[in-house]
Amino acid sequence: MANSSAPLGIFDSGVGGLTVFRRIAERMPAESIVYLGDTARVPYGTKSADTVARYAQSCAEVLMNRGVKMLVVACNTASAYALDVLRRELPIPVLGVIEPGAKRAVAATRAKHIGVIGTAGTINSGKYQDSIREYAPDARVSTKPCPLFVPLAEEGWTQGAVPEQVAREYLSELCAQGIDTLVLGCTHYPLLKDVIAQAVGPNVVLVDSAEATSESVADVLNHQCEANKGSGQGARTFLVTDAPETFKRVGKHFLKDEITDVEWVDI
Amino acid sequence: MANSSAPLGIFDSGVGGLTVFRRIAERMPAESIVYLGDTARVPYGTKSADTVARYAQSCAEVLMNRGVKMLVVACNTASAYALDVLRRELPIPVLGVIEPGAKRAVAATRAKHIGVIGTAGTINSGKYQDSIREYAPDARVSTKPCPLFVPLAEEGWTQGAVPEQVAREYLSELCAQGIDTLVLGCTHYPLLKDVIAQAVGPNVVLVDSAEATSESVADVLNHQCEANKGSGQGARTFLVTDAPETFKRVGKHFLKDEITDVEWVDI
Repeated sequence: MANSSAPLGIFDSGVGGLTVFRRIAERMPAESIVYLGDTARVPYGTKSADTVARYAQSCAEVLMNRGVKMLVVACNTASAYALDVLRRELPIPVLGVIEPGAKRAVAATRAKHIGVIGTAGTINSGKYQDSIREYAPDARVSTKPCPLFVPLAEEGWTQGAVPEQVAREYLSELCAQGIDTLVLGCTHYPLLKDVIAQAVGPNVVLVDSAEATSESVADVLNHQCEANKGSGQGARTFLVTDAPETFKRVGKHFLKDEITDVEWVDI
Repeated sequence: MANSSAPLGIFDSGVGGLTVFRRIAERMPAESIVYLGDTARVPYGTKSADTVARYAQSCAEVLMNRGVKMLVVACNTASAYALDVLRRELPIPVLGVIEPGAKRAVAATRAKHIGVIGTAGTINSGKYQDSIREYAPDARVSTKPCPLFVPLAEEGWTQGAVPEQVAREYLSELCAQGIDTLVLGCTHYPLLKDVIAQAVGPNVVLVDSAEATSESVADVLNHQCEANKGSGQGARTFLVTDAPETFKRVGKHFLKDEITDVEWVDI
């Protein structure tokens, strides 16, 4: 078992995984965390399975070299395409965001009809569909890739006429199909929660994978890893593959906190 | 001087440069062309100068190894951040899309007030502003980064309520400032020409860099390089760094023609 004071490693294609970082840091403040945003190669959601898996492996390598005791793949697309290979290759627990989100959606649905939105990569992988059916074989799953939500969130257009119109265009069909639960299957989407909620109406429960994932991380830490029992706040380290300045500027909206030190790493 | 039958090399971060490819192929059908779309690392427009320059150098290397006689940087952001270094390093003529677009805008403006839209990288680089002032020192230049236009074009949302609304939000300020000419400073934007034209009104001339660039390529071929004097159609070769299938599917809208053979290259 790893040293309890070793950090957790989290990676994402960019800033989106900071929504997962935030939930984990809130729930387990004593844990040290190293976060890697692969900002030079972002986004992953439009790219092929092979390319995403290759990028995810190189991210994992950077974090392994930092001595992490557990790896959280805080990107839905990378969870979809790279979780299996990372679990095979790495000697530490590896957790994605899809299983926790799927599990929570199954717990929430009454009509047994779950909607999933995400990047083209995540939806096309079929991993949410598989994971939901594993927990609820009789559930119906309807999906819709929503590629414009990521640039809208990064542009900061999270309210107003444009995101509302985009949300209606993407979500009207899912609503008409009768879903009662909607998984926000991309770490950027929680920033658009208000317009998404407005588009689907009050009878559809929104499931935020970031929140669900922090619960699973706590479970794994307590059962497969050593949790940090310290009482102080753990260290937070931010690594990026492109310019630190942009990451600080955009990332603070995702983290809901200022980001001061960011280190550039070459991949 | 290079062999006249050697191909032209064109690269872009992805599919956008196919608008430049098309104009060049129309104007100079006998030329063989090797096109490289760096689809695994797309987009460049949101990334830092250093990262874009590094990526552009690796793209140029791939094309040099294919024996190209001239290099066209068919990406505005790469033209902004990497043209100088490529010109210093390469023994062949290197042409970007910014100078041709700037020159044509200067020829078109009557009010001497030119608008430029592009990615955040292109606008922040100040290269269009510099290039326009080189040709017309007394011109006024107003700029606006329009990050959402790229994902809209890639999503195929080029008409209707959403792109119209986005175009109005981005362009109303430029119009109010009194521009009479607008440079489409990103190779994706010609796909949105209709909604952009509608947003700026009939009194603003739109300048398409792709069209302007093909003229400059012809000039350079005739003066610094050897043009291919053959009468048949030159070979067309397409290289990509991510999955060929997506490139074929999305790229045909930019090329306005089917793309059959696409070769994957590892960078």
